[in-house]
Amino acid sequence: TLLRDVGHLHQSEIGDLIEALDPEQRRELVNLMGETFDFTALTEVDDSIRREIIEALPNAQIAKALQLLDSDDAVYILEDLAPEVQDEILALLPFTERVRLRRSLNYPEETAGRRMQTEFVAVPPFWTVGQTIDYMRESRDLPDSFSQIFVVDPTFRLVGAVDLDRILRTQRAVKIEEIMRESPHAIPATMDQEEAAQIFEQYDLLSAAVVDENHRLVGVLTIDDVVDVITQEAEEDLMRLGGVGDEELSDSVLATSRSRVPWLMINLVTAFFAASIISLFDDTIQAVVALAVLMPIVAGMGGNAGSQTMTVTVRALATGNLGLHNAARVIRREIGVGLLNGLIFATLIGTVAGLWFDSVTIGGIIASAMVVNMFTAALAGILIPMLLDRLGIDPAVASAVFLTTITDVVGFFAFLGLATWWYGLL
Amino acid sequence: TLLRDVGHLHQSEIGDLIEALDPEQRRELVNLMGETFDFTALTEVDDSIRREIIEALPNAQIAKALQLLDSDDAVYILEDLAPEVQDEILALLPFTERVRLRRSLNYPEETAGRRMQTEFVAVPPFWTVGQTIDYMRESRDLPDSFSQIFVVDPTFRLVGAVDLDRILRTQRAVKIEEIMRESPHAIPATMDQEEAAQIFEQYDLLSAAVVDENHRLVGVLTIDDVVDVITQEAEEDLMRLGGVGDEELSDSVLATSRSRVPWLMINLVTAFFAASIISLFDDTIQAVVALAVLMPIVAGMGGNAGSQTMTVTVRALATGNLGLHNAARVIRREIGVGLLNGLIFATLIGTVAGLWFDSVTIGGIIASAMVVNMFTAALAGILIPMLLDRLGIDPAVASAVFLTTITDVVGFFAFLGLATWWYGLL
Ligand SMILES: [Mg+2]
Ligand SMILES: [Mg+2]
Ligand SMILES: [Mg+2]
Ligand SMILES: [Mg+2]
Ligand SMILES: [Mg+2]
Ligand SMILES: [Mg+2]
Ligand SMILES: [Mg+2]
Ligand SMILES: [Mg+2]
Ligand SMILES: [Mg+2]
Ligand SMILES: [Mg+2]
Ligand SMILES: [Mg+2]
Ligand SMILES: [Mg+2]
Ligand SMILES: [Mg+2]
Repeated sequence: TLLRDVGHLHQSEIGDLIEALDPEQRRELVNLMGETFDFTALTEVDDSIRREIIEALPNAQIAKALQLLDSDDAVYILEDLAPEVQDEILALLPFTERVRLRRSLNYPEETAGRRMQTEFVAVPPFWTVGQTIDYMRESRDLPDSFSQIFVVDPTFRLVGAVDLDRILRTQRAVKIEEIMRESPHAIPATMDQEEAAQIFEQYDLLSAAVVDENHRLVGVLTIDDVVDVITQEAEEDLMRLGGVGDEELSDSVLATSRSRVPWLMINLVTAFFAASIISLFDDTIQAVVALAVLMPIVAGMGGNAGSQTMTVTVRALATGNLGLHNAARVIRREIGVGLLNGLIFATLIGTVAGLWFDSVTIGGIIASAMVVNMFTAALAGILIPMLLDRLGIDPAVASAVFLTTITDVVGFFAFLGLATWWYGLL
Repeated sequence: TLLRDVGHLHQSEIGDLIEALDPEQRRELVNLMGETFDFTALTEVDDSIRREIIEALPNAQIAKALQLLDSDDAVYILEDLAPEVQDEILALLPFTERVRLRRSLNYPEETAGRRMQTEFVAVPPFWTVGQTIDYMRESRDLPDSFSQIFVVDPTFRLVGAVDLDRILRTQRAVKIEEIMRESPHAIPATMDQEEAAQIFEQYDLLSAAVVDENHRLVGVLTIDDVVDVITQEAEEDLMRLGGVGDEELSDSVLATSRSRVPWLMINLVTAFFAASIISLFDDTIQAVVALAVLMPIVAGMGGNAGSQTMTVTVRALATGNLGLHNAARVIRREIGVGLLNGLIFATLIGTVAGLWFDSVTIGGIIASAMVVNMFTAALAGILIPMLLDRLGIDPAVASAVFLTTITDVVGFFAFLGLATWWYGLL
């Protein structure tokens, strides 16, 4: 009866179920379901769980199950396996299947070629709508679902595409070439998946033809998989900015710790660097302890202001909204905001600190240091991500470390240095 | 010729063009295009620019242009306007148009009812595939594009849905009720758009019926608009975690500054609170200046470790991956990671600090404080977002402030308190 219940679930629900079980139960469930287990569910679970399940199954069963999947889902499962295991499993597949999957796997990771499915409907331009409909009624070899058919020439070069609703509202006698869109948004197989996703977003596509370097139709990218790409890329940026790697909720304590240590390590180095700046001024601090009390405020507020700018910049770069056409304007704006907010908070903090320690000098010093640090924070917050992006480094990964290093160092140096200079004058 | 070039552009490209122009040129472009200006382009530009353009146009022109749009796009443009302006424009529309838009606008912001379009194809269950196709060939009143048709009873209650590819591969004589899916993923009009988006993601939908409280079909939600929702919600979470409000790249210096000041203000209060903790121990600092040098390391590393945990938690809550079924396990994991990483970094920092200041005492004190603060950071990083989520507060907005307050206060207090106690004993 458990099996009957599970049989009614959608693959993604089975995926959720598998994630909720512990490893022992997962194996049991998969064994129990045997051949009725739809491997599509494996595309919906965390990577580590998928690997765990696949590794426990005999290659013959995997090969059999992969043949029932859309090619993109089969590739998604295969791509994480070791090359030898991939080869073993592919060797068990029929020739055409093997060639298709191999072609996708040969495209680099995170490209349209990796994410496309090779099942699609393609017809010649001279067919009529009626012929096309008859073909679809009779063919036993259609993809499980599709929202568009493609039009190709005899050498399989892409010449157009027609949405299904267009076919349905056209008389049978009309030729496909009369109703096709002639320049559909064809996506080169080597295009990065994130760029392809931006095209889907911009033109509201349901699917798009994927073409090779000769403009031959090799596959189709569908919106449901593009949605997964969008979600993953957004998650990636969020996690990177938070200093987290590729971890998943199902990872163990050890795996999680291992993924987080490198980021903390880098931060440790920069923290000691900032501390060494403070130690330059230890005599001043001993003379005026109020400086030790106030210095984290200067550094911290700079860090916060800078990370506001950095967040906006990283997001704008990721969505392609920040480019050459508006870079100058946005940089000017951020500098303006940095100066304005710097002045606002310098006044506020200077007044409060001055009153607290009953000293105009301390108020003046912290106010000046604040303006310097908030201005620096704004500059660093916009320039670091832009520079990293130019250098081909993901700005989400590396920006935060550079930024806090700069705001800490400049914050401590400006505040304590100014104080040392001033009190040295007295 | 400019006009002819612009005429070939996709609405989203016109949107990009509008954003790249300055306000003066925008008005000129819109005036120049006159009635050929497709308002759909306005759904692709920043809110402030859309408002600026709309406010410059006469209501009569707006009303005329809105009638050409899909209802969801018209609502998207109307919803940001003042209620009086909305009423004025709606009054200029034909009755049925007005009623449709009014109904969408009556649903709360960010619900499926607000995002749905009221143009769709609905047929009775007893029609045959042939009848349905003939209807689509003859009707002049179909939506611009659609990927699914709905099946309704005489009272317009939703009874099923059929994908277009299903219709195309079925013989003309077959009845719609034989091929329809009987329980399509109908979305209540009052459902939050983010929840609706999760349903699209989970079941790989291209469109979904939106129903009222009587299960009557009122509209259709399409994947292209859901993609916009996913992008916006991901952006929102990223910006909130970075302490940024609803600002857009085209905002002015003043508007940007205004949107960022509140977050900095809250951080200022917590920074002064943390400073007041330090000031409790000013005598100790004066006696051992090394403490002032090292204390930012303890607070900062706690903050970084905590924000790793917080980021993972906020994301898991937003995607619905963290729920009652796995909360206990994830909390246990984070505590484990906090302790493990706490021990690792305590050892490291203790050794380095001990060597730097040539003092076993200082090494021991900072190591102990690190364990305490990293453990606290882990607890706070997971419990704060979960608690906020339970209280119905967006964890992305508020978590960071609470977290850094806690890691600063606990970091300073543990480190300086321990030192005071230890040196007091000597
Ligand atoms: Mg899942
Ligand atoms: Mg993968
Ligand atoms: Mg990528
Ligand atoms: Mg779009
Ligand atoms: Mg797929
Ligand atoms: Mg998929
Ligand atoms: Mg990315
Ligand atoms: Mg809006
Ligand atoms: Mg929301
Ligand atoms: Mg999906
Ligand atoms: Mg729409
Ligand atoms: Mg839209
Ligand atoms: Mg949200």
